[in-house]
Amino acid sequence: MKLWQKDISVSAEIEKFTVGKDAELDMELARFDVLGSLAHIRMLESINLLTAQELEVLQAELKSIHQSIEAGDFTIEEGVEDIHSQVELELTKRVGDAGKKIHSGRSRNDQVLLDLKLYFRYQLQELVQDSTALFEVLQTQSEKYKNVLLPGYTHLQIAMPSSFGLWFGAYAESLVDDMQMLLAAYKIADKNPLGSAAGYGSSFPLNRQMTTDLLGFESMNYNVVYAQMGRGKSERIVATAMASVAATLAKMSMDLCLYMSQNFGFITLPAHLTTGSSIMPHKKNPDVFELLRGKCNKLQALPTEISMLLINLPSGYHRDLQLLKENLFPAFAELKSCLQMMAYMMQEVQVKENILEDEKYKYLFSVDAVNALALEGMPFRDAYKAVGESIEAGNFSMPDAVSHTHEGSLGNLCNTEIAAQMQKVLEQFNFERVKNAYEQLLK
Amino acid sequence: MKLWQKDISVSAEIEKFTVGKDAELDMELARFDVLGSLAHIRMLESINLLTAQELEVLQAELKSIHQSIEAGDFTIEEGVEDIHSQVELELTKRVGDAGKKIHSGRSRNDQVLLDLKLYFRYQLQELVQDSTALFEVLQTQSEKYKNVLLPGYTHLQIAMPSSFGLWFGAYAESLVDDMQMLLAAYKIADKNPLGSAAGYGSSFPLNRQMTTDLLGFESMNYNVVYAQMGRGKSERIVATAMASVAATLAKMSMDLCLYMSQNFGFITLPAHLTTGSSIMPHKKNPDVFELLRGKCNKLQALPTEISMLLINLPSGYHRDLQLLKENLFPAFAELKSCLQMMAYMMQEVQVKENILEDEKYKYLFSVDAVNALALEGMPFRDAYKAVGESIEAGNFSMPDAVSHTHEGSLGNLCNTEIAAQMQKVLEQFNFERVKNAYEQLLK
Amino acid sequence: MKLWQKDISVSAEIEKFTVGKDAELDMELARFDVLGSLAHIRMLESINLLTAQELEVLQAELKSIHQSIEAGDFTIEEGVEDIHSQVELELTKRVGDAGKKIHSGRSRNDQVLLDLKLYFRYQLQELVQDSTALFEVLQTQSEKYKNVLLPGYTHLQIAMPSSFGLWFGAYAESLVDDMQMLLAAYKIADKNPLGSAAGYGSSFPLNRQMTTDLLGFESMNYNVVYAQMGRGKSERIVATAMASVAATLAKMSMDLCLYMSQNFGFITLPAHLTTGSSIMPHKKNPDVFELLRGKCNKLQALPTEISMLLINLPSGYHRDLQLLKENLFPAFAELKSCLQMMAYMMQEVQVKENILEDEKYKYLFSVDAVNALALEGMPFRDAYKAVGESIEAGNFSMPDAVSHTHEGSLGNLCNTEIAAQMQKVLEQFNFERVKNAYEQLLK
Amino acid sequence: MKLWQKDISVSAEIEKFTVGKDAELDMELARFDVLGSLAHIRMLESINLLTAQELEVLQAELKSIHQSIEAGDFTIEEGVEDIHSQVELELTKRVGDAGKKIHSGRSRNDQVLLDLKLYFRYQLQELVQDSTALFEVLQTQSEKYKNVLLPGYTHLQIAMPSSFGLWFGAYAESLVDDMQMLLAAYKIADKNPLGSAAGYGSSFPLNRQMTTDLLGFESMNYNVVYAQMGRGKSERIVATAMASVAATLAKMSMDLCLYMSQNFGFITLPAHLTTGSSIMPHKKNPDVFELLRGKCNKLQALPTEISMLLINLPSGYHRDLQLLKENLFPAFAELKSCLQMMAYMMQEVQVKENILEDEKYKYLFSVDAVNALALEGMPFRDAYKAVGESIEAGNFSMPDAVSHTHEGSLGNLCNTEIAAQMQKVLEQFNFERVKNAYEQLLK
Repeated sequence: MKLWQKDISVSAEIEKFTVGKDAELDMELARFDVLGSLAHIRMLESINLLTAQELEVLQAELKSIHQSIEAGDFTIEEGVEDIHSQVELELTKRVGDAGKKIHSGRSRNDQVLLDLKLYFRYQLQELVQDSTALFEVLQTQSEKYKNVLLPGYTHLQIAMPSSFGLWFGAYAESLVDDMQMLLAAYKIADKNPLGSAAGYGSSFPLNRQMTTDLLGFESMNYNVVYAQMGRGKSERIVATAMASVAATLAKMSMDLCLYMSQNFGFITLPAHLTTGSSIMPHKKNPDVFELLRGKCNKLQALPTEISMLLINLPSGYHRDLQLLKENLFPAFAELKSCLQMMAYMMQEVQVKENILEDEKYKYLFSVDAVNALALEGMPFRDAYKAVGESIEAGNFSMPDAVSHTHEGSLGNLCNTEIAAQMQKVLEQFNFERVKNAYEQLLK
Repeated sequence: MKLWQKDISVSAEIEKFTVGKDAELDMELARFDVLGSLAHIRMLESINLLTAQELEVLQAELKSIHQSIEAGDFTIEEGVEDIHSQVELELTKRVGDAGKKIHSGRSRNDQVLLDLKLYFRYQLQELVQDSTALFEVLQTQSEKYKNVLLPGYTHLQIAMPSSFGLWFGAYAESLVDDMQMLLAAYKIADKNPLGSAAGYGSSFPLNRQMTTDLLGFESMNYNVVYAQMGRGKSERIVATAMASVAATLAKMSMDLCLYMSQNFGFITLPAHLTTGSSIMPHKKNPDVFELLRGKCNKLQALPTEISMLLINLPSGYHRDLQLLKENLFPAFAELKSCLQMMAYMMQEVQVKENILEDEKYKYLFSVDAVNALALEGMPFRDAYKAVGESIEAGNFSMPDAVSHTHEGSLGNLCNTEIAAQMQKVLEQFNFERVKNAYEQLLK
Repeated sequence: MKLWQKDISVSAEIEKFTVGKDAELDMELARFDVLGSLAHIRMLESINLLTAQELEVLQAELKSIHQSIEAGDFTIEEGVEDIHSQVELELTKRVGDAGKKIHSGRSRNDQVLLDLKLYFRYQLQELVQDSTALFEVLQTQSEKYKNVLLPGYTHLQIAMPSSFGLWFGAYAESLVDDMQMLLAAYKIADKNPLGSAAGYGSSFPLNRQMTTDLLGFESMNYNVVYAQMGRGKSERIVATAMASVAATLAKMSMDLCLYMSQNFGFITLPAHLTTGSSIMPHKKNPDVFELLRGKCNKLQALPTEISMLLINLPSGYHRDLQLLKENLFPAFAELKSCLQMMAYMMQEVQVKENILEDEKYKYLFSVDAVNALALEGMPFRDAYKAVGESIEAGNFSMPDAVSHTHEGSLGNLCNTEIAAQMQKVLEQFNFERVKNAYEQLLK
Repeated sequence: MKLWQKDISVSAEIEKFTVGKDAELDMELARFDVLGSLAHIRMLESINLLTAQELEVLQAELKSIHQSIEAGDFTIEEGVEDIHSQVELELTKRVGDAGKKIHSGRSRNDQVLLDLKLYFRYQLQELVQDSTALFEVLQTQSEKYKNVLLPGYTHLQIAMPSSFGLWFGAYAESLVDDMQMLLAAYKIADKNPLGSAAGYGSSFPLNRQMTTDLLGFESMNYNVVYAQMGRGKSERIVATAMASVAATLAKMSMDLCLYMSQNFGFITLPAHLTTGSSIMPHKKNPDVFELLRGKCNKLQALPTEISMLLINLPSGYHRDLQLLKENLFPAFAELKSCLQMMAYMMQEVQVKENILEDEKYKYLFSVDAVNALALEGMPFRDAYKAVGESIEAGNFSMPDAVSHTHEGSLGNLCNTEIAAQMQKVLEQFNFERVKNAYEQLLK
């Protein structure tokens, strides 16, 4: 059964061990690999490493491969190690040996680095869009339910009046800060590593500014040793930004699971979004929220895993780095599905009215009562004592209305201002530049 | 002043358990607590919760306390729970019951939130300064040693020509990306939580924009529920940014430990910066680099620890959050000392000349030799074959000179462009605004 | 005595950077350092590296130092680097140059390794004792409250009948499995590294079996290279075992925080064990449980931190390992205080009777009702349908009694069997052997 | 494109989100699910919840399903949620409604708990076997190369003489301590949770001791609430034990990558086990060791991920727990392939002779020279000085032979004693009991 007992060449086992899941994961890079090659060959032609004619032929074929990929017609064949080999194979099939010239002045290392940067930019853009969509749903619900009161807790003890307006709005605002992390990750991804070759540059007179512009990068990873060092570092920072979004979703889910419990009973879901039991009619299991919570907590371990792969690797490429893809690539789809699912669920969730009528919430307004007396001129200490005594005497009654007026409070949610904060961060991404660059490359 | 005032023996144990290291750690917050109170009372006066006269007296005393703190004359007394209680105690000693009025419209929760935000801004600014100083040292050394060649490794195998110019420069550029993370953390810290009270706001007509401006914040955490949610989240993001800087230093240290090994022998340190043995004269233990490596790897676990404290806590304050300070606060001093020590060491390190003369590095230039033939017009494949044959035949000789010319390569380090990238990030911090605000508050 | 003795200003900074918190942390090792030396010198005398007379003098002084340590009279002097230097200094003061002979055949490396093994054995024994004490409290409470029913939750939804007997008993049984982890850690700590010198052994004819026996070790770390490799590995495994205990306490604390919430209201604490507010009389903040939860969640990050310090360090000593002490040493005291505090709190906690009378728990027994019909012979599906219909028709009534009889169920807690499981693990520690060995060394 | 914009029932999306990878992962549980059912139905018949005839029919069919699984003929059909549903479906197809009776007294929760325990026992046994095989290879190589010397390093500085005997032997001994962790995990897995139902037991008079015996468990998880709490806890502990083995392999791999570097050059691999380049003939990339290192470092993050999924979940089942399988299940295959690959590579690795002849290793024996003089009677300090002077004067010559004799040293590896330690741990697993139990169930 064991490797070393087999009577066959060990190479198959070794290959399986070393190739791992690359073929599968690399399909996600296919589009970007072709875009990178399109930029690279235009630069090669500009420094006379390709003729204008070779460029034309190669461009035509690469664009055609790009179309296959977009159409879902492109696969990595059995026995081909990775996406880069598959594209090269395809190209050589179509245009002969000239296909191999696209590797001049490029190494597998900077090719992968480039594919990853383009891929991260793309995935971060998608995450920004899904986060923004959720943000909008939360802001809408915050406005819709701004007058539906909730008990607010500290130490899980009933404390002060809150509202669904505040609750939905809080998680919207949380996404604004998460967006700042996505922006930092994007800025770091938005630098061109192409031309760093195997991490020590090339003796060819490459024009790295040209590929930087062609691919719509904001700038480049100048130092070639640093460009290679970005492998792993980019991944860690991207994962960190994702973990931040995930933490927001996970916390929201924990609240929702509690609020679904009969002991809180603040929200309900339509029956088709829960699982239950006909002999336990009250039981509505919030499976979607539990899985949102679990998936998003799991995502928060990703930066740790990446760090553990990187710690104490000296500078220069190491094969360990290949493994970074395995949990990171699927994490993008996972987080996007969580964002979309949460947006859907937040539209469907039904909030309960009149929660505060329950006897156990009767002291929620005691602080407001003290403040009211204080505002009427009674010294704070006396006001506090007066309310304490009325409670002890059993004649405390909840004030009729809440009048919290300051910025971000119950009566003044400032959702517009929060939306403006979000907009300010969003404007610092430059998705348009990338779109235009790709259109130029593919037209 | 204490949490439990009952006259039974268990209280002492419980108090010790609950107070923990707060008194010690809180000293770091003292300055910021006073600054926050100075802003808060000016706002209270503006909404008539303090008289102009009370404001004047309180301001005078708070400024005087601030001076004591700056002078190092301020301590948390035995039996006083935390910095906030100590400041209040001091104030009440000096101005009587009016001292307690500073708590109107404020809760311990938002007071701590505010202190932390001000503290994080301060520490991030210090980290930015120390990182910039190291950046400059690395750039200087990169220029100084740009012509001293090093072997470049992939898979820890000798691969391609590199240089100390590239090596120093790479880590400088790494700090540019780390700075992007510090910026994200700063942006998140630079929002005012004051006025969120216990996480549900206040029925007093607070003017939160006023305190936001007085404290030099860029903006505020509007939603009061989100403001409280920032506890832990800010810490996590700040720790993440620190971990990014730490990862750069740790990787550099690993390189340095290898380069100090006699098996590499690329650098040496003056004797007083190593430990050794008179009977093993070659042995120069790089303790400082090992400790830099260890301390910076340890710092990379901090975000994990913080996440573990936060995961699945529902919204609202929980006492667990107090523990966030314990490893985070000392981490600032630790990382700053690492940055400073690395800057010092990088000035002292002695690089070895003529490393490439060793026989084992003779094939470093084989790729350059192939490229040279290719540039002369020989097809790449033929050039590759020709060089391979000359190597096999034993008559391959290293080319005389390296001529890497593209951006970021051996012969064109682009340190100026990298410095410009750094400058572009640095300009997005607004330390001046904060400085001006504090001067106004304290004048 | 110091690492750097040059007369230049940088030394102080470097020394501070390299020594770190060692002096403080090393005090915990003092007793064990002396015990190790007592064994080492008896072995040295047996191989003629010490005379009988030297042995006698050294033993007398070491025992006297041990007494000072036990009496709390021993300190590491200003300017002395660590505990080992302090003991040597003390010894040389008392017996002159002969004091230095205790270092023959020993290096600082194996001396520290030994101190750590002895220290871990000691701390693990204390953790075993505190865990056992908590186990007994939980079992006692389980028996005491075995008839007080609780709702059982799945998905945080009310599901099935449970009891305080089950709840307390479950956490007792959790400690049995944690004990298995403490045992594994103990077994790994219970091997003698002394004689491995700097990780490559010694050319002196040491008798390592003799010191193994004298120090009451079960066995030794034979291979000297492995003995050194144990640094870090032992720490990681000890931390892992602690994290397992911590996870049990943290989960228990989370339950308790929920049960204290007015929305559950299953337990209360005497007023002096909570914090509250006179104007919110229902509010009893469970600070102790929150801090137990937080401290124990924080402890679960310790193995990650240790791994991050160790990953990709090649074999052989590195100075990074010194940093392992910084968070691990205080963690022992932290976890012990958590175990003790939880045992105390579990004695004080007041459970609420008649919880199930609340309307929202009325369907808890629906499964039992189905089972009862099934046991009377009705096909399961029909029984299920009948109960479902009675619920829908509004005439379902809770059965009068619970009759769960199988092992580990409501009516048959099997606490005795669980205690027997615990006993079986406890017997595999051999604390007696260690105690006897130390008595021999010190008599 | 988004979920909530689709014009179809959302249920497909929700189902995809909730089912996740369960169908795929559950195939690994199939055998164990059937074994568990075989035990359960025998118990049901013993308490009259099945007739003898029903038992016979069900047993026959379950054994037949077991055979299909073993033969690889069993799959989870499209649209069937998990393995448990598939087995039930199969059974109902074959024996009609009686097939559903196997669920009496059992819930999906304890069925999954049981499957996992059986699966973990199985995987741990495999890991024990693969670890033992690697242990034996390492011991063999240690004996084979016991006289081939290596430089030993501290601080990555050349320090003392070592050998391949010590190096191979050290990692063998490391596996002994790892085995202690596997044993702890096994002991915790080897307890029967069946009968705990949904975590609160059953009102049926189940005989849990009977299923415990039938399935070859050492004992049971008595308390039903604790049995459910074992979900996640078992996973964490199993992952921790795996991480310990992985840490040993990763460290070994780091050594090997360094030793393969031309700057060390201590080992070589046959060409078919490396990748290289015809124009860089010295370059032999150790991809397998790098991937071993990376895979094993990645595995060390698994306990963190599991902790992050578990932290602060209150007691009782939550759907989050389903996600525990996703990275844990593939980790078993990953670690086993790493163990097998390392055993293979360690047989193929070629060690270099006469390493110490290189000039840079000449002071390796200086400590031995000092000791030799000391053993001849010269006071240690004088001996040290004498050797120091001869080194300074340039007339130090390496001693002819190494004579390290103590336990575990260069000249006395104690591999037999280490093998005995391993044997002692191995004997505490009781794989035979399990094997016999399964044979009984299936015969």
